[in-house]
Amino acid sequence: MNVTVRGRTQRFRTVTFDRARNSVLLIEQRLLPHEFKIVATRNFRETARAITDMVVRGAGAIGATAAYGLAQGALAFRGSDLNEFIAHLETVYKTLGTARPTAVDPLNAMHQVLFAIAKGKTVAERQSLALAAAEEFANEDVRHCEAIGKHGVKLIRNGMKILTHCNAGWLAFVDIGTATAPMYAAQGQGKQFHVFCDETRPRSQGATLTAWELAQQKISHQIIADNAAGHLMQRGEIDLVIVGSDRTLGRTGEVTNKIGTYTKAVLAARHKIPFYVAIPLSTIDWNLKRGFDIPIEDRHESEVLGAWGTISDPQSAIRNPQSARRAYVRVANPTSGARNPGFDVTPPDLITGIITPAGIFKPKELWRQRHKLGFQG
Amino acid sequence: MNVTVRGRTQRFRTVTFDRARNSVLLIEQRLLPHEFKIVATRNFRETARAITDMVVRGAGAIGATAAYGLAQGALAFRGSDLNEFIAHLETVYKTLGTARPTAVDPLNAMHQVLFAIAKGKTVAERQSLALAAAEEFANEDVRHCEAIGKHGVKLIRNGMKILTHCNAGWLAFVDIGTATAPMYAAQGQGKQFHVFCDETRPRSQGATLTAWELAQQKISHQIIADNAAGHLMQRGEIDLVIVGSDRTLGRTGEVTNKIGTYTKAVLAARHKIPFYVAIPLSTIDWNLKRGFDIPIEDRHESEVLGAWGTISDPQSAIRNPQSARRAYVRVANPTSGARNPGFDVTPPDLITGIITPAGIFKPKELWRQRHKLGFQG
Repeated sequence: MNVTVRGRTQRFRTVTFDRARNSVLLIEQRLLPHEFKIVATRNFRETARAITDMVVRGAGAIGATAAYGLAQGALAFRGSDLNEFIAHLETVYKTLGTARPTAVDPLNAMHQVLFAIAKGKTVAERQSLALAAAEEFANEDVRHCEAIGKHGVKLIRNGMKILTHCNAGWLAFVDIGTATAPMYAAQGQGKQFHVFCDETRPRSQGATLTAWELAQQKISHQIIADNAAGHLMQRGEIDLVIVGSDRTLGRTGEVTNKIGTYTKAVLAARHKIPFYVAIPLSTIDWNLKRGFDIPIEDRHESEVLGAWGTISDPQSAIRNPQSARRAYVRVANPTSGARNPGFDVTPPDLITGIITPAGIFKPKELWRQRHKLGFQG
Repeated sequence: MNVTVRGRTQRFRTVTFDRARNSVLLIEQRLLPHEFKIVATRNFRETARAITDMVVRGAGAIGATAAYGLAQGALAFRGSDLNEFIAHLETVYKTLGTARPTAVDPLNAMHQVLFAIAKGKTVAERQSLALAAAEEFANEDVRHCEAIGKHGVKLIRNGMKILTHCNAGWLAFVDIGTATAPMYAAQGQGKQFHVFCDETRPRSQGATLTAWELAQQKISHQIIADNAAGHLMQRGEIDLVIVGSDRTLGRTGEVTNKIGTYTKAVLAARHKIPFYVAIPLSTIDWNLKRGFDIPIEDRHESEVLGAWGTISDPQSAIRNPQSARRAYVRVANPTSGARNPGFDVTPPDLITGIITPAGIFKPKELWRQRHKLGFQG
């Protein structure tokens, strides 16, 4: 999507590949929204480290990064011995596959590349097939998000006020995003609308990433405290909710997403406001039978007890210009602890529809439509 | 309540009076939870400034501060001319009465003192009546909170997990508090329970003030993001909700309280978890006929766009020890704005009961019980 740097607007993808330098190019997301920078990884180990250190995050984005990283590793191989090449690829695969131990997207993405490679006879053939497959993975991610936008755009009418939670935007994918895809498509059609971004404590992805994306795309928006959505709904100021999902159960229609999503769904149901979840097919889990069985990660309490930001207290900036940088402030009482569940599960009765690349479905319809939605089995 | 300073535990009130120095003594709440300090105002103008600058905040606490401030002004008068004394008192009253323009508690508190003074014949008599009336106002505030605790304690059973929002604790009153009163009473009876404090963005009064209070009183507690309560309710981890109120409509049972309260009430109703509001009689509004007519203050967007805390980044503290102090960090995207409603209104159908000094009532019963609840008219 568009990013304006020093007055110049350019189109960027979250993840791309530089063939000449054999480098994966990534938007350094840890610096956003305060600084925009593209970093280049020089080899597959650096690419794995970028995934581990969350230079890049988000399902589609880390999938594409791993796919490019595998191609990068393949292309770096010197020689023509096929067995040595395969042994080398195994190292590359393991290094990238363990970069984020709980994520499945890097593994799924690399499997696509490995299947494509298998058709090549020589090392050179396999190297070029690897890069082509990685490019195809990234392009498919973009096409899926475009398709979500095409279906979802029908939900957005002129003058609407839309609530979103966390970041399911283009930074989490190769481009366009999922929850944001209908908004970007609506903007493309000249529709006028306003977006409320939940700040999404404790990690504030709404206030940082989603707000930055929407500002870059010049979409009218405001950040709100997570506490404020109920009041705005009560006063008739929200017409539509669109969120993303980390895992959606294909058998039940239950949606796992960032903590606080369930709360917004309960509020939307009370106020009869349509509540939609936009998802790529890769996040549908066809195995699990009960949302209650989804393990909910308890994250570190420091996230709840404080906040990361840039110091803008003029006095301290004058005293020490170096301190006008990113800092963590402890907000909470120093002798108190916190409980920090990272995700919650929204039941299907609270969800108006699930926006997929293959169309919009009721959550309970997913299983019946499973062959259209990529279920293999 | 108890405060432990350098290993020594002492009992404090939020507001007291030092007759010998003619000073109002206040807990400096802007330094909490990071520092505990008592400040003494030397004259009524300093007392008014302490109210304006929010050294002291909370309905009962600023009421008592204004009552003491009026007595302080009266006692500072030198001479015996009654007309001069009355003119002086008028200045004192106006100075304190405009310290927080939208608050009614300072005015109501000072009216009580003025009525008491009127019975005195000489200046000296009136001066001592003023102080006695201010002391009586403060003691009555404490008795009301004790009565709330006595009624509310019956709701707390051993092993319960209780959710509270914002700060309706002893720091907001002269002592004990309202939402916290049943908890302190239950602790006094040896009951075991655990409290989840909503951090209460954007001003984080739950993470700072309520958590500090509970830690000082050695009550088991954890801070949670405002997003987390829904998930905890869904998993059966919350048994009871108790919050305070800034204004409760006596005619309808609608409750105005800190933004986010309504959301917790909606969630509690969905999970059939009892939702109680603890209030002093002074916050009941017997005039207003519709909650929709309560003006909801839109506060400054900087509250949502960042956070106040203490810098604990070791590197910046080493570079500049002065910076290891309170600082504001900008969290949000620098080119985005925010919407910041300060309060919301919870309808009576979501409220299990209202805990008052006169007993626990259904919200719709308030009007019928109005004479017991201090309605004059």
